[in-house]
Amino acid sequence: MRTRIDVDLEKGTILRTDLPGNAIWLGGRGLAESILLQEVPPACHPLGSRNVLVFAPGLFAGTSMPTASRMSVAGKSPLTGGIKESNVGGMAGMILSQLGIGAVVIKGMSPVGHPKLLLVGKRSSELIEVPELHRLGNYQTVEILKKRFGNEAVILSIGPCGEMKMSAATIAVTDTNGRPCRHAGRGGLGGVMGSKGLKAIVIDPEGAQVRRGTDPAAFAKAVKEYTKILQSSKKTAFWRENGTAGLVEVSHARGSLPTRNFTSGAYDKKDGVNAERLKTLTAQRKGIMGHACMRGCVVRCSNIFNDPQGRYLTSGLEYETITMMGPNLDIDDLDTIAQIDFRCDDYGIDTIETGATIGILSETDLFRFGDRERAIQLIDEIGKGTVLGRVLGQGVTTTGKVFGITRIPAVKGQSLAAHEPRSLKGLGVTYATSPQGADHTAGFVAEEPLLREGHTERSRNAQINVVIADSLGLCQFTGLRDDYDLFVRLIGALTGKAPSAEEVVQLGRKALWEERKFNQGAGVGPGQDRLPEFMRSEALPPNNNAFDVEDEDLDRVFGDYPK
Amino acid sequence: MRTRIDVDLEKGTILRTDLPGNAIWLGGRGLAESILLQEVPPACHPLGSRNVLVFAPGLFAGTSMPTASRMSVAGKSPLTGGIKESNVGGMAGMILSQLGIGAVVIKGMSPVGHPKLLLVGKRSSELIEVPELHRLGNYQTVEILKKRFGNEAVILSIGPCGEMKMSAATIAVTDTNGRPCRHAGRGGLGGVMGSKGLKAIVIDPEGAQVRRGTDPAAFAKAVKEYTKILQSSKKTAFWRENGTAGLVEVSHARGSLPTRNFTSGAYDKKDGVNAERLKTLTAQRKGIMGHACMRGCVVRCSNIFNDPQGRYLTSGLEYETITMMGPNLDIDDLDTIAQIDFRCDDYGIDTIETGATIGILSETDLFRFGDRERAIQLIDEIGKGTVLGRVLGQGVTTTGKVFGITRIPAVKGQSLAAHEPRSLKGLGVTYATSPQGADHTAGFVAEEPLLREGHTERSRNAQINVVIADSLGLCQFTGLRDDYDLFVRLIGALTGKAPSAEEVVQLGRKALWEERKFNQGAGVGPGQDRLPEFMRSEALPPNNNAFDVEDEDLDRVFGDYPK
Repeated sequence: MRTRIDVDLEKGTILRTDLPGNAIWLGGRGLAESILLQEVPPACHPLGSRNVLVFAPGLFAGTSMPTASRMSVAGKSPLTGGIKESNVGGMAGMILSQLGIGAVVIKGMSPVGHPKLLLVGKRSSELIEVPELHRLGNYQTVEILKKRFGNEAVILSIGPCGEMKMSAATIAVTDTNGRPCRHAGRGGLGGVMGSKGLKAIVIDPEGAQVRRGTDPAAFAKAVKEYTKILQSSKKTAFWRENGTAGLVEVSHARGSLPTRNFTSGAYDKKDGVNAERLKTLTAQRKGIMGHACMRGCVVRCSNIFNDPQGRYLTSGLEYETITMMGPNLDIDDLDTIAQIDFRCDDYGIDTIETGATIGILSETDLFRFGDRERAIQLIDEIGKGTVLGRVLGQGVTTTGKVFGITRIPAVKGQSLAAHEPRSLKGLGVTYATSPQGADHTAGFVAEEPLLREGHTERSRNAQINVVIADSLGLCQFTGLRDDYDLFVRLIGALTGKAPSAEEVVQLGRKALWEERKFNQGAGVGPGQDRLPEFMRSEALPPNNNAFDVEDEDLDRVFGDYPK
Repeated sequence: MRTRIDVDLEKGTILRTDLPGNAIWLGGRGLAESILLQEVPPACHPLGSRNVLVFAPGLFAGTSMPTASRMSVAGKSPLTGGIKESNVGGMAGMILSQLGIGAVVIKGMSPVGHPKLLLVGKRSSELIEVPELHRLGNYQTVEILKKRFGNEAVILSIGPCGEMKMSAATIAVTDTNGRPCRHAGRGGLGGVMGSKGLKAIVIDPEGAQVRRGTDPAAFAKAVKEYTKILQSSKKTAFWRENGTAGLVEVSHARGSLPTRNFTSGAYDKKDGVNAERLKTLTAQRKGIMGHACMRGCVVRCSNIFNDPQGRYLTSGLEYETITMMGPNLDIDDLDTIAQIDFRCDDYGIDTIETGATIGILSETDLFRFGDRERAIQLIDEIGKGTVLGRVLGQGVTTTGKVFGITRIPAVKGQSLAAHEPRSLKGLGVTYATSPQGADHTAGFVAEEPLLREGHTERSRNAQINVVIADSLGLCQFTGLRDDYDLFVRLIGALTGKAPSAEEVVQLGRKALWEERKFNQGAGVGPGQDRLPEFMRSEALPPNNNAFDVEDEDLDRVFGDYPK
């Protein structure tokens, strides 16, 4: 039986209970959100005492299944005002699950002014006051905590941005090297953690055991099959060789690479920031490509990027960061981007949201395209929490509001990611309609990217599919698709009760609709299911296409809004 | 026949057409919003080219009816993201109406970078470039324009805050003395005007004629009756003698006077800011009490406040400003408040929103209660548009977000006014449910202020009643109530077609529901029909009451949300 740990920061209490039996197929996003839906009043202030922050490893996390130990972090988002699930790799999902923990639920707000730490162990957990960590960056925080709790401790933490309750603040998770470089990045859940007064969660791996399932032989057999499929996939080879940076060329060729504040879909200087360049520099500097963010991953899309002297600069240098801080700001230099990435990870701020935010500042005298030093300076303003930094730390929508900028690449208050919907119209449908706000991981649709029609069902199916993957703990790069038979067998062998493929889909569908219901209660209505206006009025080079999917086709994704 | 003037700033075109015949009973709020509902896509950006700004005098404006020439300004609000009608006195409604103009509709955005002016005359109108007015305050703007267009010109204008597209920017209207001291204050419509590149509207009164109606004798007779009722009312005498400042004592006694950032409903130093103090200073300094903001007003609640040397300081020094900048900031000095009021009028920023905004800064080191100099400095930051000033100029919700403050006195992004809903629970129901956001003029309910039950119908009726008053051009101080018979006669004699009292109510009801429908399309869902959380959890001294009206009772105000 998996357990649930409830931590009330206000009362200082910790309670461990069994997860209910009917949660048998629920993990990750589905489980986390079912808790939110039952326990969080949708109209509450996201940074107030009634919001709840849930950490829930996917169902397969902690098993021998490769690339399947991702974790969902969920709460009401200060960025979108709606429900938020932010999915993260690293080691936390695996180890929590191997300790038998299905969910950690953080409630209330600490009445004291200095930060606390939650130490989670196999048998007991406790809250510890850590005033010495106040406003420290994630890297220093993790260093101090590893000295205290051992090098094997898995750590979740927030940087100064989370402590300042910024709407774009992240929650860092340590990776296979114990570095805080994997982030639950989107939607400002770091701000929620900060509002509760919780600086970090230290997971003591003592006693962690690989989960073998109720039918270990059948489970191991199915895992073997699954692993073989993954290992033989061309996609797996692509990600391992290129990292996500491989997408720079793909997006550029497709015309979907956000460039210079979303004014082009192709970047003339892409050779400075593509996978070839990344691989060359990595080889020269003795960095690592094909790095695994979680143990046992067969995809291994991550990397370690060193400076010219061969010293650690950042990890992982990802496509989303490269594009939003590179082409989108007209910065064609991986070293600058890597420095920005490290700072964002250390301060604990979302690189996607922040790249979009600096992008729109190009309309003011606060930033001009290509200004590398200024870009780094602006990130430092955020980390320090100057007035300007506090504005930028709220993301692109608030920053636009403050500076009177109306051309804002965002949906429901959350910035678009590094994929231009005018050249990827199916993804545009997902951006517009996802209850999560603009999110490339909420249901990527790459088919017939320039066609205006036919995306409604694709986006709906992709969104349902993602909810399932996020609930099972699967990395999206493992390519879960419409054939659920193998997963049904895996679930059966793990839990002792196999759902039908249809039941799996129903579960995903229900969870997605429930997200929309939460948003309705939060006052985030379906009128927000729209891309920014400029994407309809401005044709995007080089395809010279505007976003022209009919509103009716967007509204059909969910049909009648649930009451 | 009343006409409508459409001004397209993008194309530079002006078109004058007759208002449709079925708009015969429509003026003010009802007319303005019917235009918005037909012509503005609810999901558009409020500061983008598809938003529309409508100026519509009430139906009775420009007649001999006293205190009935108010004007509605309407558009999609950058503050709330929903529909907005901001109602204003001064001379514009009367003179526009006497020129036969029922609505001025501003569309598009000027492609040039410097401001334009719209000159409206009886027979023709034109757009004029006025680069020399860029970023000037309202007072200087009006001074320059009166030199150019004559002292009799009636002027609508925005200050630097409107030009900077701030979400709390106002539109100033000149009063009977030709001063820009009456403001369409709430909801940031000054920012909408700024986004269009329109600095001012100059109304040339040449040819203005009092509207006598289709049955002048019957109309004059009914007006006489109406005037008598108004003149003999005790309320009229109260407002004329005390100005709205008379409410300081009323609110203090009731425990509904927002004090020290909404932590008390009574103010120990109220004697420094009440009507007695105002009257004493006014008499000493040869100011004026009982001043009329529009010609022919019998209520005359406005005033002119001079400095100790007898020089003009500001007009009118109103209860809302006095309280939000006085008790709410623990400033017990009318001179400071008057200086703040003048600056806000000059820069063109809402005193209610800004008072609430500075109030929450008391949670940071940016402001401490009672610091008069700092309060003035902060207003100056807004006018100058420093980074901090730009934050504050977006109002209390954005400011709270930027500084991580969660105790925000606002509904739907708009600050509460100077009436504490914990001690005025009926008004609390209006604050929560009005499509306009928290607004004391959206349906004031004073009955049984501490009772949790019984306010649903009261608030609904008050909201409908206000829509009718705002559509007819009536000042709320004339006390339109449930008996519509005299108004039915007035409408009949004016327009030639008398509705039934029931039809008048239906019209108000329909307009109100349509506002909610617009909000639904804008993504502002019914989940936002809630007061801030802290008002439920913190009991307010001296009554020691929290807001405890049931959510169900709030939701029943409008019942099923319209599709």
